[in-house]
Amino acid sequence: MGEGTPGCGPLIPPLSETARPLRQQIFERVRAAGLIPRVQLARELSVSPASVTTLTSELIEAGFLEEVQAPRGAEGGRGRPAVALGVRAAAHHVAGIKLSDREHTAVIVDFAGKRIAGEAIARQPGPMELAGLLEATETLLNRVCAKAGLARGDLSAVGLGVPGFVDCPTGIVHWSPVLADRHVPLAAAVAGRLGLPVHVDNDANLVTLAELWFGVGRRLSDFAVVTIEHGLGMGFVLNHRIYRGARGLGMELGHTKVQLDGALCRCGQRGCLEAYVADYALVREAQTALNLPNRETQAVGALLESLYDHAKAGNAAARSIFHRAGRYLALGLSNVVNLFDPELIILSGERMRFDYLYAKETLAEMEAMILNTGRPMPRVETHAWGDLLWAHGAAALALQEVTEGLLGQTRDLC
Amino acid sequence: MGEGTPGCGPLIPPLSETARPLRQQIFERVRAAGLIPRVQLARELSVSPASVTTLTSELIEAGFLEEVQAPRGAEGGRGRPAVALGVRAAAHHVAGIKLSDREHTAVIVDFAGKRIAGEAIARQPGPMELAGLLEATETLLNRVCAKAGLARGDLSAVGLGVPGFVDCPTGIVHWSPVLADRHVPLAAAVAGRLGLPVHVDNDANLVTLAELWFGVGRRLSDFAVVTIEHGLGMGFVLNHRIYRGARGLGMELGHTKVQLDGALCRCGQRGCLEAYVADYALVREAQTALNLPNRETQAVGALLESLYDHAKAGNAAARSIFHRAGRYLALGLSNVVNLFDPELIILSGERMRFDYLYAKETLAEMEAMILNTGRPMPRVETHAWGDLLWAHGAAALALQEVTEGLLGQTRDLC
Repeated sequence: MGEGTPGCGPLIPPLSETARPLRQQIFERVRAAGLIPRVQLARELSVSPASVTTLTSELIEAGFLEEVQAPRGAEGGRGRPAVALGVRAAAHHVAGIKLSDREHTAVIVDFAGKRIAGEAIARQPGPMELAGLLEATETLLNRVCAKAGLARGDLSAVGLGVPGFVDCPTGIVHWSPVLADRHVPLAAAVAGRLGLPVHVDNDANLVTLAELWFGVGRRLSDFAVVTIEHGLGMGFVLNHRIYRGARGLGMELGHTKVQLDGALCRCGQRGCLEAYVADYALVREAQTALNLPNRETQAVGALLESLYDHAKAGNAAARSIFHRAGRYLALGLSNVVNLFDPELIILSGERMRFDYLYAKETLAEMEAMILNTGRPMPRVETHAWGDLLWAHGAAALALQEVTEGLLGQTRDLC
Repeated sequence: MGEGTPGCGPLIPPLSETARPLRQQIFERVRAAGLIPRVQLARELSVSPASVTTLTSELIEAGFLEEVQAPRGAEGGRGRPAVALGVRAAAHHVAGIKLSDREHTAVIVDFAGKRIAGEAIARQPGPMELAGLLEATETLLNRVCAKAGLARGDLSAVGLGVPGFVDCPTGIVHWSPVLADRHVPLAAAVAGRLGLPVHVDNDANLVTLAELWFGVGRRLSDFAVVTIEHGLGMGFVLNHRIYRGARGLGMELGHTKVQLDGALCRCGQRGCLEAYVADYALVREAQTALNLPNRETQAVGALLESLYDHAKAGNAAARSIFHRAGRYLALGLSNVVNLFDPELIILSGERMRFDYLYAKETLAEMEAMILNTGRPMPRVETHAWGDLLWAHGAAALALQEVTEGLLGQTRDLC
């Protein structure tokens, strides 16, 4: 780039690249609202009532929306009864499935996002061959379908979540602790087995999608979600959309390096944040320093409970394990703030019950590692959830893909 | 967030929040193209030729654009002569000023972004009181105005760049190595002194703006810029815009922590990446291990040259200083990739001449710390530039603010 380059402005992408088609925005706004009158839709989306009338008529005709007689408001009983729009819940059903180390879970939701049924099956921890994974997925889907009273063919799509490095657009899982092989074209393989469209994402993005669709995403446009469990994951919502990096990966906070030549990580590299704060990192240290039973003979969860009990009882080594993990977590979160400057960080995961990690001193350490700008640091919220939330996030992924597939084909500018 | 929350879609922002007004997009597209026919504008922005005609007429009437007789193309000499649109270069002029440790630089550009004049003044390194900074800024602006043959009042705005933590929307500089105080309302102070609108940003964002407006931004929508000099900075372009974090800060890669309780940083915290790779970090180690003259008696630049010469001559301590800095830089860049997954990383800065830092082994180390996805790692390009590039980026900031101020007041949806 030379100094003498003639000046010119930025190359602006076509509007269709920066904004979703209005038809899709209208649909998603209706889904968010539950029930909403056309005039309010027009106001909230800053478009003409005429455009809303045209586009909602198309959406009704296509069977995606329906008119609902709204309860009469303060204006009383005169004039035409108020009509609101809602998503036609029965138009489509999708499944969300989460594969993990200890159990697989699944839900079925309707087109409005409401859960119809949920199911879980326990499993032996450790990596699976693809054949075993396909078998387990099909069994689980059949069970949850039976519970919902639906045939598999009644589903429009399946969202599938796995821990690890997932290239969402291609559906390739580059590495996952639940898979024995690398670079597995999982979406294609599961789609072939189930005979349904399948969309795959990693578990941190699923939690983030769940927050975006059913949680804080209703009131915030930008936030970070950090998940701590078997590994450490991150999702980032930017302008109401999950940010996935220029090439479909990214946001692998757990594998950012926090120490040159540091602790060994599951991924095979050294110094990853995850290698200091995730379950296996705590278990590893516990086995070194404490007289705890061997991992072979005790489940990870029980081992961590035991470590936690030792720490609560005042065992110095156990305490130092949680203390160090908490300090590294603080370091990782401060890096998120220094880079992304989010309004809110949500901490999610089963390990949330280990209060040692998220005690006041951890937040104080985090604050001490955030740039001193004189402003209060971003809010940090801890969200606990039920076991099926991940699967619900997977269902949101499937709903999103179905909706975009149906409504995104024609690009409307206004 | 409970499991039983009824499902609903994401809350979609009004279109006006996600897309710039079309009038502004048209203007910026014309500035990017230099000269462009209306029909091509309509095609590239995916809008109707009628809308383009209406909006460009407004822009011509307002004096922002002008019609230019385009040279006849292959279609030959028949029919009406082709007419293209261009930015009316004389409509506005802005100044861009960069304050730094060793010299202050300034440029004046026209409304089309073309540089009219440039100027630099040397200075004594170290923090300045606000009064001295205002004095220097005014002197520099007067000189560059005289060179351009313009009065100060002919300028529509001034863009001002400083190293450090800048809250761009408010113009407050929370910390800068060139300022003695913290939390200085610099934009307001300089605007008061100069009697002109002033917009402030940090130097890494200015380099990124320069790349966005005059460099790779013409062909890429998403890229990262990492600057290495007195400090280590980062800018990130996402969908053709600089990402600034939810609260106007963020992207402080130099202050992400790469070692718990690590080396002391200029910012007062420990373990910042900058404290391992920036000029002052190298100088600090050089003074410890080598028999080099004291910093008091020798400029940083000369000291680094001396260190570089020792390394080239085979001095093991000098080599190990560059080797370690290179490894930490690799670690920092791998963290950028693991989080942002950019298509391209641009390395910029005067220190680029220290090849030890950017030699093959550094890129190999970086690759070893990036997630193994089986894909090649993002491209890394090293961009050298002239001294005035930063000031040119500051001018781009001023042009952007002037353009958005003039064109962004009315929100057009189509």
